[in-house]
Amino acid sequence: MAKKVRVAILNVTGYAGVELARLLYQHPQAEIAAVTGRSEAGKPLGSVFPTLDDLGLTITAELSRSAGVDFVFSALPHKASAEALLPCLRQGLRAVDISADFRLRDAAEYQQWYQVAHPAPELLKDAAYGLTELNKDAIRRAQVVANPGCYPTSAILALAPALKEGLIEPDIIVDSKSGVSGAGRGLGLGTHFSEVNETVSAYGLEGHRHLPEIAQELRRLAPEAKLKVTFVPHLIPMTRGILSTCYAPLVESRLGSGAASAQRELAALYRDFYRDEPFVRVVPAPPQTKQTSGSNYCVLYPAVDPRTGRLIVVSCLDNLVKGAAGQAVQNMNVMLGFEETMGLRGLGLWP
Amino acid sequence: MAKKVRVAILNVTGYAGVELARLLYQHPQAEIAAVTGRSEAGKPLGSVFPTLDDLGLTITAELSRSAGVDFVFSALPHKASAEALLPCLRQGLRAVDISADFRLRDAAEYQQWYQVAHPAPELLKDAAYGLTELNKDAIRRAQVVANPGCYPTSAILALAPALKEGLIEPDIIVDSKSGVSGAGRGLGLGTHFSEVNETVSAYGLEGHRHLPEIAQELRRLAPEAKLKVTFVPHLIPMTRGILSTCYAPLVESRLGSGAASAQRELAALYRDFYRDEPFVRVVPAPPQTKQTSGSNYCVLYPAVDPRTGRLIVVSCLDNLVKGAAGQAVQNMNVMLGFEETMGLRGLGLWP
Amino acid sequence: MAKKVRVAILNVTGYAGVELARLLYQHPQAEIAAVTGRSEAGKPLGSVFPTLDDLGLTITAELSRSAGVDFVFSALPHKASAEALLPCLRQGLRAVDISADFRLRDAAEYQQWYQVAHPAPELLKDAAYGLTELNKDAIRRAQVVANPGCYPTSAILALAPALKEGLIEPDIIVDSKSGVSGAGRGLGLGTHFSEVNETVSAYGLEGHRHLPEIAQELRRLAPEAKLKVTFVPHLIPMTRGILSTCYAPLVESRLGSGAASAQRELAALYRDFYRDEPFVRVVPAPPQTKQTSGSNYCVLYPAVDPRTGRLIVVSCLDNLVKGAAGQAVQNMNVMLGFEETMGLRGLGLWP
Amino acid sequence: MAKKVRVAILNVTGYAGVELARLLYQHPQAEIAAVTGRSEAGKPLGSVFPTLDDLGLTITAELSRSAGVDFVFSALPHKASAEALLPCLRQGLRAVDISADFRLRDAAEYQQWYQVAHPAPELLKDAAYGLTELNKDAIRRAQVVANPGCYPTSAILALAPALKEGLIEPDIIVDSKSGVSGAGRGLGLGTHFSEVNETVSAYGLEGHRHLPEIAQELRRLAPEAKLKVTFVPHLIPMTRGILSTCYAPLVESRLGSGAASAQRELAALYRDFYRDEPFVRVVPAPPQTKQTSGSNYCVLYPAVDPRTGRLIVVSCLDNLVKGAAGQAVQNMNVMLGFEETMGLRGLGLWP
Repeated sequence: MAKKVRVAILNVTGYAGVELARLLYQHPQAEIAAVTGRSEAGKPLGSVFPTLDDLGLTITAELSRSAGVDFVFSALPHKASAEALLPCLRQGLRAVDISADFRLRDAAEYQQWYQVAHPAPELLKDAAYGLTELNKDAIRRAQVVANPGCYPTSAILALAPALKEGLIEPDIIVDSKSGVSGAGRGLGLGTHFSEVNETVSAYGLEGHRHLPEIAQELRRLAPEAKLKVTFVPHLIPMTRGILSTCYAPLVESRLGSGAASAQRELAALYRDFYRDEPFVRVVPAPPQTKQTSGSNYCVLYPAVDPRTGRLIVVSCLDNLVKGAAGQAVQNMNVMLGFEETMGLRGLGLWP
Repeated sequence: MAKKVRVAILNVTGYAGVELARLLYQHPQAEIAAVTGRSEAGKPLGSVFPTLDDLGLTITAELSRSAGVDFVFSALPHKASAEALLPCLRQGLRAVDISADFRLRDAAEYQQWYQVAHPAPELLKDAAYGLTELNKDAIRRAQVVANPGCYPTSAILALAPALKEGLIEPDIIVDSKSGVSGAGRGLGLGTHFSEVNETVSAYGLEGHRHLPEIAQELRRLAPEAKLKVTFVPHLIPMTRGILSTCYAPLVESRLGSGAASAQRELAALYRDFYRDEPFVRVVPAPPQTKQTSGSNYCVLYPAVDPRTGRLIVVSCLDNLVKGAAGQAVQNMNVMLGFEETMGLRGLGLWP
Repeated sequence: MAKKVRVAILNVTGYAGVELARLLYQHPQAEIAAVTGRSEAGKPLGSVFPTLDDLGLTITAELSRSAGVDFVFSALPHKASAEALLPCLRQGLRAVDISADFRLRDAAEYQQWYQVAHPAPELLKDAAYGLTELNKDAIRRAQVVANPGCYPTSAILALAPALKEGLIEPDIIVDSKSGVSGAGRGLGLGTHFSEVNETVSAYGLEGHRHLPEIAQELRRLAPEAKLKVTFVPHLIPMTRGILSTCYAPLVESRLGSGAASAQRELAALYRDFYRDEPFVRVVPAPPQTKQTSGSNYCVLYPAVDPRTGRLIVVSCLDNLVKGAAGQAVQNMNVMLGFEETMGLRGLGLWP
Repeated sequence: MAKKVRVAILNVTGYAGVELARLLYQHPQAEIAAVTGRSEAGKPLGSVFPTLDDLGLTITAELSRSAGVDFVFSALPHKASAEALLPCLRQGLRAVDISADFRLRDAAEYQQWYQVAHPAPELLKDAAYGLTELNKDAIRRAQVVANPGCYPTSAILALAPALKEGLIEPDIIVDSKSGVSGAGRGLGLGTHFSEVNETVSAYGLEGHRHLPEIAQELRRLAPEAKLKVTFVPHLIPMTRGILSTCYAPLVESRLGSGAASAQRELAALYRDFYRDEPFVRVVPAPPQTKQTSGSNYCVLYPAVDPRTGRLIVVSCLDNLVKGAAGQAVQNMNVMLGFEETMGLRGLGLWP
């Protein structure tokens, strides 16, 4: 057996970091060589996250050269992530960045949405957007892959077939419902149990940071279209999972006449589009997020609303797996020429 | 003090019935004279629902004449409800029907959506649709008031000002998120704790029974418009509450130019529309359902999406109060000439 | 009608404070004249807690004399509470203190458990311990009443009849399960939604601050007994409610021979003990906390374990009502000569 | 590589069955050859449980000989399980029975607790009780292994070291808190989301079926002791997990004098007892069930209550893994001479 790839996880102490550690521990070709986390530096990883005790690792403040790392995952917050990755990239290391730093190709747009100047604008043009199913060639070649946001992953996979095939008008609404782990491990009243349990809220109506990311990637799929995208995320009282309900007017007479035949054609087109993708499942009934809990699947249900001629696509995934750490491992697999599903075959939990 | 109204609750053993009992117990002008419930007939109400023990009532199988009732609430399932109300109405009693039986004015449409012939089509034209804020005069005069569905209440209150004022194109999407109590007390895998906890699902994409109700009432608000309504309900892991996110394109140049001024005008218009309504609150930030838990409020947040020129209205209520039993009591108050808020001033619980 | 009592709530911004405001708003003889809260001073109460919007109050930093207050509730943290109450008491105001400051009669014990010197040890001997059912005379006369902790309320009410009647050996275990609101509104990983949802933990095994309070009051009920009390609280993923399961060996031959007759005698003894108490309900089957959600009831189920001759008492209450704000209002009612149930008759929510 | 063992899962449609399928799919030496489930017979497994779609199996009504099965897991209800296993055992197959049928060694006791005559009393004496850590030799040799109940697993592992070493008086209380999946997939009001969410209840005070199982196994550990065991299970609003808090008086002067040194000795004794057990972890702080979610660990925290001289042991596990399917696979591994941890190394999810 070939020597394993020695990987580092920067900022293992956030939820994406913990999930990366869980998944990489099960990866037959990867070995976790270093995990960093400033606030918990010096502690055994298992004392902070008991589920990770079997890894036998100690958290360090920074990634040191002596760790002898071959590949880097960064789960740092934006800005800090690019700053920490720069020296690694200069050393020639390849990396998947789970932060937002390499997602937007335009440094000015980044600054507008993230309120800071981009730490490394010169790298943006070479970074690949890591929605694995849609961008595999670029990912394979890239030195740094920008792992997509959780909402964008669910929305773009839901809309890509319809948009690319010209089935819909570019007048799109994405209504997303997310579990609370998507808000991270940082404290706040908005994630305080008693305030977020037994309630649902909309947020980000003035413009959520995942909106420009969704728009940028949808535009790549339909460059001619004058895209209008509304995105409204909601917080719901569960830990993991995102369900996005996506709406767009169908272009007339592109699908068979009659609701039933239109529905059949639509489903066939979606199945066909994702035929070779191991982690996208097109299903014949509206799915729920629990179907994906703990696994790297994105489950899609495309439907024709017979009364209005609208396309509705329901998309489910686990925000910490396909929406973060799982897709990051999937991207590493593609970058390093491993089988795309390596280390990611674990089934979700039910119930 | 005047003699109290003697009310009956038909089918007290469903969640709308329990909530009616809770609210009417606190009503200074009403006295619960009878509660029925076939499966639990003969039992003390407090043995089935301990929170109702103070009422000291016994469940009976049917409403008997000797109960000497002045007013009837029916919380029976559709069809059974109209059948049970018919003899009461013939006796001259007035009633609020929480079932769907008197909501749709067209018996054929009723049959299409509910798969049964309407038990009393001749009564449909005189029944009032009990969305109290929009239909007070008719409710005041009606013998039977059709208490709206929980989803329609949240959606119609959210859209009425914009639609009536001609602010929006009649191309509407209602994306609703409901707690599980909306699915009732009947058993099923879809409401089994382990299957519905920690998951969110969309349902009813082929057409939910609340859709024709929403469409009928929106059409009354804008009779000229060629209405297209898409309605997608979702089930989320909490007990009470509905949040509806409603989307429609704004008619150009109806609101001030510039996002900020359009937003201000929109909010003013909504506040003005509901100025005299004690249970509708127009708020300056996206609300959450917990703000309404246990109370009869519907809380609305109207917003302009600056990038797309779309109207977004977020609407929250407690599905068992304003979405069912609370609105039923509010309707009784209007029918009987009581103050509209009588018995409904209790505040919601936080947290 | 007599002039209403003008009450103040110190620190309305914690959960006990919010609940006090909800309950006092419904109290026919009380009027909220002032609410304080340092971090939110100057804001309308309804902007911080939307459910309290109807009160029309503004939060102030401190209680000013000009507020013209007749009675004070303090929901401040320990130490700060006694410090803030001292000037009020010197003015001759009466008060219910929801903090721990006046619960332990021994200043040295207070210092041992709370790690600070007591700010007003001279007041301890005159303060009444406000477990209303067990201490009504002292409460009636006291200037300051120490509102019991939530766990002690559930445990002491559960054990008082058996202990006072000499039914049990003084070898007691209290295993309590609490909703997360008991941990307050302060932020921490231990109340962060994603860390506390879908999990249960024991805590305080080295000694929880409610232990000396439980022991002190049980000792008053059975002064001769050499009491041994073990108390283990647990945190469970719900917002409100405490269930305490209490265990103690039954003294032999005090109850009828035969399990069924012992069980009957035990239940009769408990019912008799609480016969005149409007808020304690002795029930014939194991209760659940939802039966008390939003109401001031404590529900008790005493049982004989036939195989071991042990007493088991299950006790349920809403930690924010009978465990905090509701009992505080109950105590005010007793202190001021109002009917004990005044303002507290609202039923709990189901479901 | 050796030929894989062909295993069958009887009654895959309950939660233990689903979890078995998830775990066995990941087992390198086992292959699922057949899954049965009467109510869903004929359907693809993935259409009933989408998370199991990758298995590509179809549910059959019965296990047919032609399935060519080498090993059987039964997740059938009691009685049905023994009846279905009998023909398999006669064929010479080995089996793990997850039902209660082979747990109690005394057929009369079985009949008393399960209200049916045992279908195969002659097999009881040869069945091994499958608490793997305590009974490995018998499990290795047995034809049929009785997989322990979820509560007994948590309680017995918690108490075994103290009991076996004579540290405690045999006067034991087990207070357990379980997630709702432990109540299975069968419908009932007690598992209806709206009735079980946001509430905690005690049940089984009159005697839960896991009590004789706990008592039988504790008696084997301390045959001389006159054991008194009280067991009270509680249902809490989460899907997976059991936390048992176990109490017993410490025998005087068996542990070092001084609370700190007694605590140290106790922890050392527990660590030593489970030194060679890969799935039992003795931890230095009170654990929570989330630490075990999805994994086969049982986590123990033994403590000395310094004020009462009582032993308290907190025990956490995932009721569907170590409490059911995981331990079943662990037992199969022991029976077939595989490495005990084979297929069970997956880490739990956090959060």
